[in-house]
Amino acid sequence: MPYAKYVQLATVKTDGRPACRTVVFRGFYDEFAGGLADRPWHLTFVTDARSKKVDEVAQSPFAELCWYFPGTREQYRISGTLEIVSSAHPDPVLLKARVNAWKRMSDGGRAQFAWPQPGLPRLEEHEHLYKDAPPTDPEIPLEAFCLVILAPEEVDHLQLRENERQLHCMREGEWVRAQVNP
Amino acid sequence: MPYAKYVQLATVKTDGRPACRTVVFRGFYDEFAGGLADRPWHLTFVTDARSKKVDEVAQSPFAELCWYFPGTREQYRISGTLEIVSSAHPDPVLLKARVNAWKRMSDGGRAQFAWPQPGLPRLEEHEHLYKDAPPTDPEIPLEAFCLVILAPEEVDHLQLRENERQLHCMREGEWVRAQVNP
Repeated sequence: MPYAKYVQLATVKTDGRPACRTVVFRGFYDEFAGGLADRPWHLTFVTDARSKKVDEVAQSPFAELCWYFPGTREQYRISGTLEIVSSAHPDPVLLKARVNAWKRMSDGGRAQFAWPQPGLPRLEEHEHLYKDAPPTDPEIPLEAFCLVILAPEEVDHLQLRENERQLHCMREGEWVRAQVNP
Repeated sequence: MPYAKYVQLATVKTDGRPACRTVVFRGFYDEFAGGLADRPWHLTFVTDARSKKVDEVAQSPFAELCWYFPGTREQYRISGTLEIVSSAHPDPVLLKARVNAWKRMSDGGRAQFAWPQPGLPRLEEHEHLYKDAPPTDPEIPLEAFCLVILAPEEVDHLQLRENERQLHCMREGEWVRAQVNP
């Protein structure tokens, strides 16, 4: 399903209220990081350094992802902590993973990072940036491009068709499973 | 689309972390409340009084709903405050709306409120409740049944196909609209 890569990510805003938006799942970290560190089941996304998400995560790194599959009537709720890898991240391993994530983007996806700052009032003089964004270099990420990594701590898997629900919790590096009431 | 009624609702947990789950949109309050008070554009859901959501909202009533339509590539983020209408709610008008919401539920939907407490360990001695839940009375809600009402304060409408984004904010009872960068 083409929309199965769209998931909802909740964070806490700087005023303590919840935020929830659709993001595109960009694969598991280990899929494209090319052996750079071992982060089993860490999920990745991308974001704009100028988006509110980045300020939110700086204050509260906690997140919950909700993934609903209408075909099978299954829901995964994945909670954990987020790490934002901007161009200024101190870890060279994560900076390399950021470049790899940029390479995997489509031209259209890359062009969005040359757009005006998300959420600011739309100005006539910036309209041309949406249509004629300059071509991007697939090897060099634009400044605003950030890789986002979710380290899962708990997974709540609900199967509505079977009336089954399992909790998976990470405890000292191991997943512990429990069957609970749906 | 059958799945267009499924939306993601984010709240803040009692430990300050975000929560995000799929809920079923049950219609606008004014659609079924039968002239009981005037709550334009208030959205409704239902929940179990024994679910974590109820404790979360008691501590922090703020919520954000994320509604993504894959067909048109549109997203609505609707933030506001939640009200939970349990059997013990002091407002008789809301209690009547709760009964009306119960009447609109399917038999299968109603039966779930007779199931064991959500999230607790699943016990063999409760298995029969999933299969042979006693029939429910469409006129009298089960104790665990709650109506949930979201009063919207801000709507962030993103149209990915057209690269358009509008913010709608409720200011003194009126919606104020602004065009912003997507």
